Formats: sequence, structure tokens, C-alpha cells
Amino acid sequence: MKPLHTLSATEALSLLTARHITSEALVQACIDQIQQYEPHIQAWQYWDAQAALRAARASDAARAAGQAIGKLHGLPIAIKDNMDTADMPTTYGSALYANHQPQRDATVVAMLRAEGAIILGKTVCTEFAYFTPGATRNPHRICHTPGGSSSGSAAAVAAGMVPLTLGTQTNGSVIRPAAFCGVLGYKPAAGLIPREGILDTSHTLDQVGFFARTVDDLEWLAHCLNPALPVNTSLPMSALRIGVLQSDLLAHASPAILALLEATQEQLHQHVRAVTTVSLDTLHGLANQHHRTIMQAEMAQALAHEREIASDHQPLSHALCELMDAGAATTAVAYLDALRAREPLAQRIAQLLEPCDVLLMPSTPGAAPEGLSSTGSPIFCSMVSLLGWPAVHVPLGEDAQGLPLGLQLVVRPGHEIALAGAARLLMQCAQREEGAPIAAMAY
Amino acid sequence: MKPLHTLSATEALSLLTARHITSEALVQACIDQIQQYEPHIQAWQYWDAQAALRAARASDAARAAGQAIGKLHGLPIAIKDNMDTADMPTTYGSALYANHQPQRDATVVAMLRAEGAIILGKTVCTEFAYFTPGATRNPHRICHTPGGSSSGSAAAVAAGMVPLTLGTQTNGSVIRPAAFCGVLGYKPAAGLIPREGILDTSHTLDQVGFFARTVDDLEWLAHCLNPALPVNTSLPMSALRIGVLQSDLLAHASPAILALLEATQEQLHQHVRAVTTVSLDTLHGLANQHHRTIMQAEMAQALAHEREIASDHQPLSHALCELMDAGAATTAVAYLDALRAREPLAQRIAQLLEPCDVLLMPSTPGAAPEGLSSTGSPIFCSMVSLLGWPAVHVPLGEDAQGLPLGLQLVVRPGHEIALAGAARLLMQCAQREEGAPIAAMAY
Repeated sequence: MKPLHTLSATEALSLLTARHITSEALVQACIDQIQQYEPHIQAWQYWDAQAALRAARASDAARAAGQAIGKLHGLPIAIKDNMDTADMPTTYGSALYANHQPQRDATVVAMLRAEGAIILGKTVCTEFAYFTPGATRNPHRICHTPGGSSSGSAAAVAAGMVPLTLGTQTNGSVIRPAAFCGVLGYKPAAGLIPREGILDTSHTLDQVGFFARTVDDLEWLAHCLNPALPVNTSLPMSALRIGVLQSDLLAHASPAILALLEATQEQLHQHVRAVTTVSLDTLHGLANQHHRTIMQAEMAQALAHEREIASDHQPLSHALCELMDAGAATTAVAYLDALRAREPLAQRIAQLLEPCDVLLMPSTPGAAPEGLSSTGSPIFCSMVSLLGWPAVHVPLGEDAQGLPLGLQLVVRPGHEIALAGAARLLMQCAQREEGAPIAAMAY
Repeated sequence: MKPLHTLSATEALSLLTARHITSEALVQACIDQIQQYEPHIQAWQYWDAQAALRAARASDAARAAGQAIGKLHGLPIAIKDNMDTADMPTTYGSALYANHQPQRDATVVAMLRAEGAIILGKTVCTEFAYFTPGATRNPHRICHTPGGSSSGSAAAVAAGMVPLTLGTQTNGSVIRPAAFCGVLGYKPAAGLIPREGILDTSHTLDQVGFFARTVDDLEWLAHCLNPALPVNTSLPMSALRIGVLQSDLLAHASPAILALLEATQEQLHQHVRAVTTVSLDTLHGLANQHHRTIMQAEMAQALAHEREIASDHQPLSHALCELMDAGAATTAVAYLDALRAREPLAQRIAQLLEPCDVLLMPSTPGAAPEGLSSTGSPIFCSMVSLLGWPAVHVPLGEDAQGLPLGLQLVVRPGHEIALAGAARLLMQCAQREEGAPIAAMAY
């Protein structure tokens, strides 16, 4: 059998159901991996090995006693630290909340517990899920950013510390760290996963997402949190129509990403019904502009209290203050212009996508940049966050430095089966039938 | 039989169904009334007697031929001129759109036609459904305002020109003209009546409403446009719990309105289970402030194009420019603060209303003011528009000058049966079992 910490969530759940493994052993394997690598990676804001092991033993006992068990029974999961947990502190990535203990679980956390998941801990989140990094490093090269804002959630999955984590995306906070850390990241369509008890930074844009090493795991978790989302899907590849992004913003992609986009496009030709180009031209940049206007205004409003309670001793970051200043200077009319432009823009883009099932595009301009002071550019994520459409990052290879490279798949809401099908196909093309590899951590 | 133009909509529909009257005769009676009084009242922006009579004859023929007929078959109805009609011009109350001919019916207009209603014409609306009056006069005293912005819709029903009209309310545009013209006005809960094809002035606050002379008519029309809204309801009066508004803003009510509120309260004691006071204190004024912030920002954004195309020759009114300037000066953060305050405020007010089924409060500070340059104060309507709750104006009497006086009933969404029950009870208390009287027009 594979080492337990390398199992995917669905593999682990099958083995748990068959009683070939115990939750305690599985959780212990995750803990061992965390204990070995956490000093280097710092993916965890909070975790409690003893509490997790107690919960795992209780889970095993419940199963042995034939008690009702949930869809995630005994599976360790980690939660981004912008989601409230009643039994663990929640810092929202800010020193202002260093000692903050929520009274109630976020709805998603309560749902996970109800399905029997073991909440292993809280993963590091950038300051208020915006731009300013926490301590987390990229498991592939610790002098490179893991991306953000769901930095710890992506890094923990990449490092084999836990098979499944939750994150959020307002701009690029799921897709980008997934890309930099070389794992699968999935942001379901806006509004499908409950946000109660999650830090509200932008009512219009905040969306919940997931990190995993297989497409099955992403589908399963999404289905557990919203039964309307499809699970165990399969799609004849020969029916799939892939659209490849063409837009002004591709000028920002690195040669490595452009080469990957082209190579992938050529590989796909052999498998699918059609590969065509989807020209968004200036619509892409326009979407990013509207996204910026909405995000800065909503974050200025949502975090006004945090700015008030900040002090010289515990200041907000310069980047966040700058964003909030821009938000404070935004007029209601400019904000509403951007908000009202969203629906017609979505309709135009949907129309351009009509001949395709799935849009293939970069997730990031390139591999994870060196340095830990920035989380990298969200330029290829903002449009999808604005539209609120489902998106998956698929890890496809490494650059010469060993840093992960991959691409983003996007669909219109309701086309989740095509999204999962295309993601599986890309994984196969990259000879990754068994999922994204765990980072080779030779520190 | 009563003169046909004095029939309520439901009376007329019964007689049409029984073939005791024809649609042609009914429409002709309305046309006669319009022809006699329109020169004084000017309720109509556009109407077409010949087209209406043709439609009525076709309606009669369809009925005689046993064809499928709708819930409003053969009934004349008028539409506020901010709702698009494919066969009649639509001016939105502005000279900028004097010759505007929409291509499509607004959804509500299409729904009325599908139910067999005869669209008699378009009723005068203030400039872009805001403050600056059109030509309409109060049928009770033509030197007094009819209120606005649904000026013509209220005046036409009060003058017996048509039994049923559609209007909209963003601030006080249904309840206030109903009060000044002495008819029933009903604004269902926000979001229940489709707004496609109606001038968008404030996405958050725009709501559709109706004018009639009986509660039955209001219920029937609401049900025709949204089958989820109850119809033919009845409620044992002995079960009803009435709350009477207490708030800082009552200082703005005239002695006549305060006396009516007190007298009505005393009358109600004899009929209902309980009459209590509901103290909103400063919440009422706070709601009005939030309403103002949202309305000015959204109108500045929604009417920006109109301001652009306005000219010295065809200017926007001073009042509208002032509002839009205030809207343009509103920051996104202030706007979002107001928007986000709405839900918790609604929850607090709902909690205060918990011991009651219906809230009784003024509709307006007093009877219709003299003069045609203003449509009067919406001070007692803004809160309900902000909350988006169902409200009815009930005409209850006249002041010494013969101008109508009445009161407003408000419920939480979903309590429409109590709202109709309370409205019927108030009509009975005012000895108006047969509905609001048609204005005595001695011009």
C-alpha cells in the first residue's frame, strides 16, 4: 500500500470504508508529514495533533460500532484561517486577530464536521485574504512564494500534509496558489458554497474553493458541500470542445506558460472533438478593471472596522491600506457602473464561448516568483472571479527549476461535468493519472 | 345597475363573465369619463380610444366564440408611463423621451395582455419617476397635487376613468399618490412583480404597485401578476393584532393625520384581538437616511445617460440634478454601508413588530398640499421602500376642504393575508364597504 499521507481523499475514504485503514493511522501519517516539514513550509496557522487524533479515534470507534457515518467520515481536512472554527482560533491572517476565538463554526466547517471530517487545523492565509503574505513558503522551493491568499491550503496539499483543504478566492486566491504549489485548485461557481462564518471582504466577489491532488477529490468535496454539484462524472473526450484563450492580456504570460498553452493545445487535438481559439480581445482587460473597482470599494467598506482598530503597534499592511484608500476614493456611481457592467459582460463572454465547452487559459503569468514578499500576479484570475464562473487549475509539469507549471480551465455555470472531464483529460495528457505529485522536499 | 365606470375591477369581471355587460360597453364608459374630465385632471400621457374599443370588441368576440380567456379578460387597465409598451409611446415623464417608442412590452404589460386585459393607455409619471411633477392634478381639488410619481395612475382611478392601474414606488410613489387622491394603493413586497421593461432608477428600491378602489381588486391584480400572492383571502378580525407606529418622525404628521391615527386606533379596539404601540424610535429616521443614500447613488448611476443627453433646450429638472449631484458625491463605501445596514435593520424592525400582524402608520404628513410644483413629502414611505415590505394605503375620510385622508398598513413579507384583512377592516370602519368613492368632480 502507498504511504498513507500520499493517498488521495477518495482513495483514503474507500480504504476507511473497507476498514483497510483507520482514521487514526491516516491522521497520524498526516501529522508525521506536518511535523517533518512544517518548520520549513509553515503552512499551518494552528493545528492540534492530539485533538485530531482523539477525533480520529472517536471516528474509528463510531464506524466500528456501526453508527451512522458521513460522506467524509474519518478524513483529515484543513481549513483556511479566514473561516471561523468554534474550537480553534481564527486570525484572518492578521495580528489584530491573533487571539481571536470565534463562537461558532462557519457553515462549511459545520457541514464538514457533520459529514464526519476530522478538522486537522487552520492553514495560513494572507492578511485578511488580500495581498500581504503570511509565513508560508512554496514546498517546491522554499525561497519562492506559495501564492495567496490561500497560501497554507495549497502548500499543505502540495507537501502531502493533508489530502484536501478549503480556501477562498476573491481575485486569484485559489487558482494562483494551486498553480504555484502544483496542486489542483477548484473554485465552484459563485454562490454555490455557503459563506456564513467566512471573513467577508467582498460580498460580490468572495467565493469558496478547494485544493486536492485529484479531480475526484475536488468533485467529491464540492458535492459534499452542495449536493447539486455533480460527482463521479465522466464524459466522452471525443465530445469535448476546447476553446483556447486569445486576449490582450496574454502579453503578460511568460514564454514557459505560452509554450505550455501551445503544447497542451496540440496534445488535446488528438483527443477531443475540437480545439478552437476564443478571442476575448479587450473584454478580458475590461473585466479585470471592473473586478478591481468592485473589490477595492467592497474591501474598503468590509474592512473599515479593522482599519479603525489597527494601530502603530499593529498596523494594516501598506498594500492593504493602499487598496482601501483606492476603495475609499471610489464613487458609488463608479462602483455601480462596474457592478452593472458585470451581467452584460458575462453574457458577451458566454456568447463567445458558445462554440466550446471549456476555456483553456493561463492560471498565472508564470511559475511561482522568487521571494516571499509578494504572492504573485492574479491577472489571469480576476475575470473569472468577476464572472463567478467555475474554474480549475490543473498542474501539468515543472519548469527547469523544478517549479510547477499548469493551466486553468473555465466553464460557464452549469457546465461542471465538462470542467471535470477536461481537467481529467489534461491530467492524463500530463501523465498524471494518479494525481498531482507531492513536492519533492529535500530541505 | 351601477354606472359602468364606477364598477370595481372584480365586479366588472364578474359581470363580463356572466355576460351581463360587454367589454366594449365597459371601455366606452371609461372613455366617456376620461373625455369628460381629462381636460381638468390630465391623468393620461397617452391613450387611444379607438384602439381600446377595437381591443374590447375583439375581447367580446373571443368570449362569445368560447375561446380561452384570461383572468382579466376584457378589463380596461392603465399603465404608468415608465413601463414600456410596444404599441404606445413611453416617455418616462421626460421631454427627452417625448417621441420614444419601445420595441417590446414590459413583462408586466405582456402578462396583463396575456390575461386578456385591455391596455387603455399610459398614465402621467413625474420626470423619470422622481420628484418633478407632470401635468396631472388632484381630482378632488385641481389646484392640489395628486402626489407622485405615479400621479396619473392614482388620479385616473380616483376620477373613475379606469378601475385599476399600475404604478411603481422607489420612495413613496404608490402610497403617497394613493393617499392624496383617496384611493387604495398596494405595493407588494420587493421582487415579487417582474421589473423587466420598467425604467430602472434604483435597482435596490424600485418596486411595482397598484391602484384600485377595492381591496379585492388589489389582491386580484397582484395574484394575476404573481400567482404566489394570495387571493380571495379572509381573516377573522378577532385574531388580528395591530401595531400602531410610534417614532420620532410622527412629529412631521399634521394634527389631522394624528387625529385620524388615534381615532382609527380606538375604532379598531372594538374589532381586533389587540392594538399595541410599536416604538421604532430613531430606527425610522435611520431607515430614511439609508434609503436616501441608496436612492441618490443608484439614480445618479442609472440616469447618467439621460443627464448626458439632456441639453439647455431639454434640461433635466433642478430637483433631479440636485439628487444626482448628491448621488455623484456619494462614496462607494457610504453607499455600501447603507446597503449592508438594510438587512440588520429589517431584522430589528421585524423583531419589534413580532407581537403584531400589521403596522398602522401615516402614509403622508397630511392631505395633498396646495400647488402643483411639488408632489409632497415621502417621509412616511421611505422606510417601507427600503425594507421592501408589503404596504397598502387605505383611504378613510376627507378633511374640511374635501381632500382625502387615510393611513398606511405595513406587514413583513409573507403576511399579505393579514395586510388585506386589516385593509378590509379599515375600509369597513370608514363605512366604505363598497370601496373608495370616486372623486366628486364639480369643475
